[in-house]
Amino acid sequence: MQARNATAAVIGAGDFIGSAIARKFASEGYTVFAGRRSADKLAALKSDIESGGGHCEARGLDARSEEQITAFLKEADDHAPLEVCVFNPGANVNFPILETTERVFRKVWEMACYSGFLAGREAARLMLARGQGAIFFTGATASMRGGIGYAAFASAKAGLRAVAQSMARELGPKNIHVAHLVIDAGVDTAFVRERIRQRGGEEALAKLPPDQLMNPQSIAETYWQLYNQPRDAWTFELDLRPYREVW
Amino acid sequence: MQARNATAAVIGAGDFIGSAIARKFASEGYTVFAGRRSADKLAALKSDIESGGGHCEARGLDARSEEQITAFLKEADDHAPLEVCVFNPGANVNFPILETTERVFRKVWEMACYSGFLAGREAARLMLARGQGAIFFTGATASMRGGIGYAAFASAKAGLRAVAQSMARELGPKNIHVAHLVIDAGVDTAFVRERIRQRGGEEALAKLPPDQLMNPQSIAETYWQLYNQPRDAWTFELDLRPYREVW
Amino acid sequence: MQARNATAAVIGAGDFIGSAIARKFASEGYTVFAGRRSADKLAALKSDIESGGGHCEARGLDARSEEQITAFLKEADDHAPLEVCVFNPGANVNFPILETTERVFRKVWEMACYSGFLAGREAARLMLARGQGAIFFTGATASMRGGIGYAAFASAKAGLRAVAQSMARELGPKNIHVAHLVIDAGVDTAFVRERIRQRGGEEALAKLPPDQLMNPQSIAETYWQLYNQPRDAWTFELDLRPYREVW
Amino acid sequence: MQARNATAAVIGAGDFIGSAIARKFASEGYTVFAGRRSADKLAALKSDIESGGGHCEARGLDARSEEQITAFLKEADDHAPLEVCVFNPGANVNFPILETTERVFRKVWEMACYSGFLAGREAARLMLARGQGAIFFTGATASMRGGIGYAAFASAKAGLRAVAQSMARELGPKNIHVAHLVIDAGVDTAFVRERIRQRGGEEALAKLPPDQLMNPQSIAETYWQLYNQPRDAWTFELDLRPYREVW
Repeated sequence: MQARNATAAVIGAGDFIGSAIARKFASEGYTVFAGRRSADKLAALKSDIESGGGHCEARGLDARSEEQITAFLKEADDHAPLEVCVFNPGANVNFPILETTERVFRKVWEMACYSGFLAGREAARLMLARGQGAIFFTGATASMRGGIGYAAFASAKAGLRAVAQSMARELGPKNIHVAHLVIDAGVDTAFVRERIRQRGGEEALAKLPPDQLMNPQSIAETYWQLYNQPRDAWTFELDLRPYREVW
Repeated sequence: MQARNATAAVIGAGDFIGSAIARKFASEGYTVFAGRRSADKLAALKSDIESGGGHCEARGLDARSEEQITAFLKEADDHAPLEVCVFNPGANVNFPILETTERVFRKVWEMACYSGFLAGREAARLMLARGQGAIFFTGATASMRGGIGYAAFASAKAGLRAVAQSMARELGPKNIHVAHLVIDAGVDTAFVRERIRQRGGEEALAKLPPDQLMNPQSIAETYWQLYNQPRDAWTFELDLRPYREVW
Repeated sequence: MQARNATAAVIGAGDFIGSAIARKFASEGYTVFAGRRSADKLAALKSDIESGGGHCEARGLDARSEEQITAFLKEADDHAPLEVCVFNPGANVNFPILETTERVFRKVWEMACYSGFLAGREAARLMLARGQGAIFFTGATASMRGGIGYAAFASAKAGLRAVAQSMARELGPKNIHVAHLVIDAGVDTAFVRERIRQRGGEEALAKLPPDQLMNPQSIAETYWQLYNQPRDAWTFELDLRPYREVW
Repeated sequence: MQARNATAAVIGAGDFIGSAIARKFASEGYTVFAGRRSADKLAALKSDIESGGGHCEARGLDARSEEQITAFLKEADDHAPLEVCVFNPGANVNFPILETTERVFRKVWEMACYSGFLAGREAARLMLARGQGAIFFTGATASMRGGIGYAAFASAKAGLRAVAQSMARELGPKNIHVAHLVIDAGVDTAFVRERIRQRGGEEALAKLPPDQLMNPQSIAETYWQLYNQPRDAWTFELDLRPYREVW
């Protein structure tokens, strides 16, 4: 691996998609600035990347804080030019409408939409100063459709998608590639596997067909490919789902 | 006019669409509970409705306050069964992404999305208790598309649309009609006329072709028609624009 | 009923939606020109309308024939100004892709899309000469979504929707109201009831909740309302489904 | 280059996108079966590929002929397993609705939609027999939107998109990757450059900013990346446009 004088910021570097993206960019020589709520939970990612010869800076980060987001991205850009910023936090909850408290509604929005706006805007500010960069937002089925029980989550994700669209139209001509990736299926996470086990028992888990769930690495690969698109043919939006998914 | 034992709540009873809807339901015999930020500004609407033999209760209302929304709708429902709730507040602003402050982003969301969630949920709570009702949300072009400069507004409106979808899917089978009306053009308001004058002078205003701008009454008529749809053929979403509009 | 000097053309005046629309416009005083493949099957509609004091001209019509469509609409317009043209033919089929013959694919397109283009264009030609009119297209779930087995049907319906959009944008400013109504659920037809019986037996049919299926009259009412929209607030597209529908 | 025992069929191997895709797959070791109306026009592509050590079979092909499509794909599959089939023909025309002849409407549909259905179905038939493959359809702005003058083209492209969706949902679980790529801007072709020259003169052409038009090679690269997606993370749809595009 050849180290590059460039950083990739991953906001919401959770155990699955976020950390797979971090590992991918690290493996390509980028210094990765990985942020998530609890810095402790980033230790494994950091040591994993570094044992592979990569470079990872792990930071505790409350993405809902303008001050923290600004400082996090500034530090990344001070380290080396911020070339890509990935906004990944999810906040998937499901409640009947009468049981959706104002606290839940607000919190989900703050985590999944408001913080995405902050991250996108601050990344854009740094990138515009150098005239290039890429800002990618992770979407979900709920970005496109308000299903039963998803008033809070779908509202936040649809709102994030609108931010991404608005930024893409303004920043594209300024050489900033903004994209929105719609992850339209279950990712292979401990949480999803546990849910399958609870519903169908150990047997359901054992019989899970190969490639039924999305491997975070496969998703990360798509972020990498988008990042490498030449600017005469940029994608704003694409969907991703496993071959067996019903949609 | 025959008075009915029913109330229509209009949240965001501004000078144009909101008050036209209020007048329409009042003219059909509904007691209208009209809410907007400043109760003073509702005086003309109230006297207008009452001079026509209608009944209007005007209330100062900060729609971003859960407590106020809950009290407002409760009072309406105590007066007579709440049969329809219209959520209408807009918050149309346009800023380049770097100039979109976190305060603006949050405030626009609170006014145009969060308060819509509160209103929809509390109206649903009251209506579910009686097993019927209608909840209508006013949308805009920005509900469907994040244009340049509209990160805040489009995000809020797309978020509101997702709330409406989620509610429609959950509440339809419970006999609550939830709909989202996409107002995809300029309404004939003092603000829009002034903007035309500023851009093109008095001449532009004088030469404005008839029906180039949407008359709030025409829009109100559509709310009324939706309200009267039988439940075997409900519309969730429709768009409205004048015949000359480019889209 | 007061007779008007105006005709309404219904192309695809089948036993359900099409004839309900025909009856509605006839009941409002329009001379209805009703066309469907077999003129014989229009006898009941014609006598029904006439026994109510209305006026109906029934014509055998192959909507896939440019010559026949042109003649049919010309005759209607010669009788009295053609004020509204409704294109309603369906062609709902479902086959696995490998079993979708080129003959089926072509025929479904000819019935549901190509003939809609012909009808729309010829209606527009007559209406433009007088500077007003309305052209409404009946859509379906498949207009918006290509589900499994619907390659032929969804392709035709999506194609028809694009025709409608393109016409709406061009003709709106010329005072022709073009709209597309998405009927997103089962209509209460003999065919649908029989399908329910076959799947669930007589019991399923007997237990069918009220308003579970769409009444063609309810749908027709919406066409009438769209037709009456003032031109400063026209709807291009709306969806219709019963309150219990899962979507 | 390492030759593979695999073929890639490109239907509509025109001078720009189609031949760029053909060259890309040839450069990766696939035998390319290139088809377009006139076999003569494929000579340059064939010699170009072969001078680079690749393998290209050029065939005159009327994609609207079920017999020819079937034979073309069969021959490709007989040569070596058909692993990917790209359907690329365009038929971009613009006419006011009244000037859109039935001949144009039908022909555009036959070229851009009907032939895509035939190609997709026949490719699927061959691929299903071996349990894998990829079928990609080239879309356009008009796939998503019926603009003024595009009744014929948008109808055909929207119809093709519906075919692709329907096939993707049915064939995905059978390990066939179906995708639809929305090319939402002008490609760098002789035709587009000439149009720019006609509108703005030589100067406009000379001042054309770099990367203002899409390079067919950039587009071809995206087809290649989609083709290489692992099946746990397949994209059905993505858009492509240059960074300066207004959308």
